[in-house]
Amino acid sequence: MSLTFYWLDGKDGRRFSPFGWRSRMALAHKGLEPQIETVKFGEKEKVAFSGQKLVPVLVDGETVVADSWAIACYLDEAYPDRPALFGNDAARGEALFINSWCNQSVHPGLVPMIVRDILDHVWPEDVAYFRDSREKRFGTSLEEVQAGRDERVGAFRANLAPLRTTLAAQAHVGGQSPSYADYIVFGSFMWPRVVSDFQLLEAEDPIETWFQRMLDLHHGLGRAALEAGGRPA
Amino acid sequence: MSLTFYWLDGKDGRRFSPFGWRSRMALAHKGLEPQIETVKFGEKEKVAFSGQKLVPVLVDGETVVADSWAIACYLDEAYPDRPALFGNDAARGEALFINSWCNQSVHPGLVPMIVRDILDHVWPEDVAYFRDSREKRFGTSLEEVQAGRDERVGAFRANLAPLRTTLAAQAHVGGQSPSYADYIVFGSFMWPRVVSDFQLLEAEDPIETWFQRMLDLHHGLGRAALEAGGRPA
Repeated sequence: MSLTFYWLDGKDGRRFSPFGWRSRMALAHKGLEPQIETVKFGEKEKVAFSGQKLVPVLVDGETVVADSWAIACYLDEAYPDRPALFGNDAARGEALFINSWCNQSVHPGLVPMIVRDILDHVWPEDVAYFRDSREKRFGTSLEEVQAGRDERVGAFRANLAPLRTTLAAQAHVGGQSPSYADYIVFGSFMWPRVVSDFQLLEAEDPIETWFQRMLDLHHGLGRAALEAGGRPA
Repeated sequence: MSLTFYWLDGKDGRRFSPFGWRSRMALAHKGLEPQIETVKFGEKEKVAFSGQKLVPVLVDGETVVADSWAIACYLDEAYPDRPALFGNDAARGEALFINSWCNQSVHPGLVPMIVRDILDHVWPEDVAYFRDSREKRFGTSLEEVQAGRDERVGAFRANLAPLRTTLAAQAHVGGQSPSYADYIVFGSFMWPRVVSDFQLLEAEDPIETWFQRMLDLHHGLGRAALEAGGRPA
């Protein structure tokens, strides 16, 4: 088996891509240990062979899979005898909703609270690209975008109510044990944790309790990433 | 088998409870045909035997189950040989998130757009209770609550983006075929359809396309309810 996983690289080991984390945890869940290839923002030619420019990309022998959702679906189909990420069509279908909810309902509130902090953790050669591309998107400076986050965090937390209710009632997003639905949401919260000291969740929030448990999964894969980045564990 | 299902009753056959519809569709999915007992707002003593006052309630022989989520879980456990509502623990876990999203993210925007319309479809003896209890909750008249909905419907539709993305990519919330996740969301949209002519969704919205297909399920169970209420099909 020749398995290679390409994902976004920040300096000092701070890998902050939510999409990368979804796939990284999915690979660990399946018990697969790929060769890791890191890709800086300015190194997109590294994945040009995949026919597009975005990471994560998984290469499994002759098969090339780009996009975190496609990677999860591929892994369950290609490795049916290993622990299931979905397990049935209903779980996969519902996970696509959760994926969409994270991308379209959580991330728009999240990015403006951490986007300036991210800048401190991209490689020096990526700084100008990151600032310019994001400031063009927002129409103002990263400092302006992030300003006032203390006033916005309450609304951000309120929007997480359905997730909070779920994790107050059961151990994982996917019920009793972690499945791909958990890795989707985990990726969204690893993003801020890896780059920012801003407290997004209150300590007693059931989402925070779940997140701390998720950090310990798969031999502490997530927790090791936080520690590598020098952030207090 | 002695199976009795208690759900909320409006006049002219307009049964509008989203929670009732979740369970009604779940029963049909399992191929179960319960005896139906209708309960008006003022008839809560009819389900006092369940130890609480809310419908839906399912009575299966000696077993009494209240609450739509509990009913769904019960049906899959009690009737494992019939078509699955969840099928595995991950699908059930994820469905609880979708249940919470409907209740906590969709309904708060939905209710203020239809609450005055509901009043026209409760029984005469329920009108005073419905108006008083809801006006106390909102702190103003039902007419005031519903006013200006044309200006609010855009934000309501925008909040449905994750559902729209999901249903643009696959036939059902639960993937290729309907499962309990679909009945959860269906219940939330039957609520306005049964009581209001207000156009919540644009005709070309993938959510509308899915909803129309859902109305045809189980021998047109949902569509028959709309037609019984006199609303244009």
